[in-house]
Amino acid sequence: MKPYVEMSREELEALHEQLLLQYENVKAKGLKLDMSRGKPSKEQLDLSLGMMSILDEESDLMSSSGVDCRNYGILDGIPEARKLLADMSEVPERNILIYGNSSLNVMFDTISRAFTHGIMGSTPWCKLDKVKFLCPVPGYDRHFAITEYFGIEMINIPLLEDGPDMDLVEKYVSEDPAVKGIWCVPKYANPTGISYSDEVVRRFARLKPAAEDFRIFWDNAYSIHHLYDDKRDVIMEILNECTKCGNRHMVFKFISTSKVSFPGSGIAALAASKANLEDAKEYMKRQTIGHDKLNQLRHVRFFKDMQGMYTHMRKHAASLRPKFEIVLDTLEKELGGLEIGTWTKPLGGYFISFDSMDGCAKQIVAKAKEAGVVMTGAGATFPYGKDPKDSNIRIAPSFPTVDELALAAKVFVLSVKLVSVEKLLAQFGE
Amino acid sequence: MKPYVEMSREELEALHEQLLLQYENVKAKGLKLDMSRGKPSKEQLDLSLGMMSILDEESDLMSSSGVDCRNYGILDGIPEARKLLADMSEVPERNILIYGNSSLNVMFDTISRAFTHGIMGSTPWCKLDKVKFLCPVPGYDRHFAITEYFGIEMINIPLLEDGPDMDLVEKYVSEDPAVKGIWCVPKYANPTGISYSDEVVRRFARLKPAAEDFRIFWDNAYSIHHLYDDKRDVIMEILNECTKCGNRHMVFKFISTSKVSFPGSGIAALAASKANLEDAKEYMKRQTIGHDKLNQLRHVRFFKDMQGMYTHMRKHAASLRPKFEIVLDTLEKELGGLEIGTWTKPLGGYFISFDSMDGCAKQIVAKAKEAGVVMTGAGATFPYGKDPKDSNIRIAPSFPTVDELALAAKVFVLSVKLVSVEKLLAQFGE
Repeated sequence: MKPYVEMSREELEALHEQLLLQYENVKAKGLKLDMSRGKPSKEQLDLSLGMMSILDEESDLMSSSGVDCRNYGILDGIPEARKLLADMSEVPERNILIYGNSSLNVMFDTISRAFTHGIMGSTPWCKLDKVKFLCPVPGYDRHFAITEYFGIEMINIPLLEDGPDMDLVEKYVSEDPAVKGIWCVPKYANPTGISYSDEVVRRFARLKPAAEDFRIFWDNAYSIHHLYDDKRDVIMEILNECTKCGNRHMVFKFISTSKVSFPGSGIAALAASKANLEDAKEYMKRQTIGHDKLNQLRHVRFFKDMQGMYTHMRKHAASLRPKFEIVLDTLEKELGGLEIGTWTKPLGGYFISFDSMDGCAKQIVAKAKEAGVVMTGAGATFPYGKDPKDSNIRIAPSFPTVDELALAAKVFVLSVKLVSVEKLLAQFGE
Repeated sequence: MKPYVEMSREELEALHEQLLLQYENVKAKGLKLDMSRGKPSKEQLDLSLGMMSILDEESDLMSSSGVDCRNYGILDGIPEARKLLADMSEVPERNILIYGNSSLNVMFDTISRAFTHGIMGSTPWCKLDKVKFLCPVPGYDRHFAITEYFGIEMINIPLLEDGPDMDLVEKYVSEDPAVKGIWCVPKYANPTGISYSDEVVRRFARLKPAAEDFRIFWDNAYSIHHLYDDKRDVIMEILNECTKCGNRHMVFKFISTSKVSFPGSGIAALAASKANLEDAKEYMKRQTIGHDKLNQLRHVRFFKDMQGMYTHMRKHAASLRPKFEIVLDTLEKELGGLEIGTWTKPLGGYFISFDSMDGCAKQIVAKAKEAGVVMTGAGATFPYGKDPKDSNIRIAPSFPTVDELALAAKVFVLSVKLVSVEKLLAQFGE
């Protein structure tokens, strides 16, 4: 089929009639499908079921340092959990601090700490007139929700094929001392699935911030979440690179096992320079006597080491791969060549990012919903929920079954076609 | 033996020589004992071992509302955990919010939230020149550590036999709008073990705060931690009482299972008015997608209901009772009538509070340490670590064995005697 933009008014009208008919037929089916949320499927969760019984009444519940994991004690994580998550974060054990069940919580608390106590001796952000964050877009809505909640001004930075637009990043960071941070998902980014190139990581490490307390918030949420064995993204380790450039305090790395073991029942960590961790511990030691060591032990006993985790993640990949592929195949087959949308083809992570013609995303999501398919709200991938072009839609294929996805993807592409045709027709005027 | 104060210089000198000899003998034993920390013993932890295998690969891991506890979802706790902790907190389910592994963390976050976002629409505390908290003393060092960390001015309020000095509390709260809170451990208080009388609770509920965002921080850490079946303290439920007095937003109740199941691997909750919980949830929904639901499920499956928890706590009591008794017996037998110290005889909780003659506590703790017995640091039970009389010492008998406690208590009373005699001798001058 030829590109929609090349069609005449008559062709478009005929197509519209045909699409409307298809759409009404689909609507009549009363579907209830959901591609909105980046959560693992039941099948994926079952992969970690063994963790439920890895500790039992007969188990040795002592950490390798001889501490009873059932009792108070150990602020920064049991040694074996520190080792495992340090390996997962690709940093030495001295650069890791274990937290509770969620890296989002660590990020929130890190921002909150900066507001009330400042970072490494700098002025608490609550004492400043203005705090700004750079937000590569499209990005993760929960990042933006944190900075919005704290009244931080968010500045959109285009996310390109190989990472954020570094010319813009460098300009803002070096010129404006109110710019205190940038949200990054460096690998299999949420939602585009792209990974930062070595050149981008190098430019990050070489930043010359106007603010001494500027930090890169490096949310490596999908560090080992590959879809393929033979094709996978590798990113440069940022803490080491920052250290080489004399910027070792400039990055906070966040990691968790949420999409490795169980979301909400995983373990999380912060990786950073010793001085940053000491600063974080000043806060932590007032906030808690210690995090859940039994859950730390459970994770280490189950995965044993990174090899164990890699093996486990290959099982996740086997479950996720056909889901990504059915959606991508449908997009290609149904929308290829029509020039009414573009989309990413990630090698890992949890999302596919779709860009419609400008001004169509909200309507597409509404149309899909009307036909029984829930998508992430249009705009959610931008600060303040405002996509200036109204074109980005996040597709989350992990939770439904392959059969459900086949159906849902068809409804989605039909919605894209319908809205696009209507948009083009509207341009001809009444 | 007669009271030390009635002894002549010669009698004291003879006694001193004798005590020194005993002390040197004890020191020579090279003991290594610890009565410093309110942590459960191994025997107590073993009582909850069944929890380790209560969930296994075959378990139904769905909440009563049909949510898979292994996945994302449910911000405020699974319904069955809300029910259990609401019952434990003696409030309706609508007044409970489940958090993570520690009530200390909930308290910290509550203070932090007040600083950055204010409470129910009031001015964030970080925007105020001065924030003050009332601190009944002696009290819990970790409470004071939080308020000190946030730069809150702490005001000592004497803790009497039946609760804080309410004349003082009423005066400060009604007159000074900078007074935003008071730390309370209303039952088996840390460290004195006293419980608040109905009259005290009633006066709390009837406070007329100058600050609209004044809150009572009601840390009911030992709500079901009785030592005896036949003698136990009962306190009036504060949220209900506040509501009756038109003050339903004035109290935050904190609770956890730290000393019921496993410290650090328990579950915690905040009980408060609906409006307060909605306010807290505005924060929580940015901070996390949800707390550890598998651990919530684990707790409910293990305890089932409050009857199950009561039965469980009777086993804890059976383990703790002889420990409290050996210490109390030793204090009575060795120090009774000497008028060099007073101590509390709690019916529950984790501590015995000892008051030496003024100006002796630090030296007593040092002497005990020199002889191999670690006590909580003198002063720790006061804001800023400063006990104005240098007389209060917290005794934590839970962790050591009964045999160890018998020894440790003897070393302690010997240290008390020795320091007291030296103090009295010093008064005669050189």
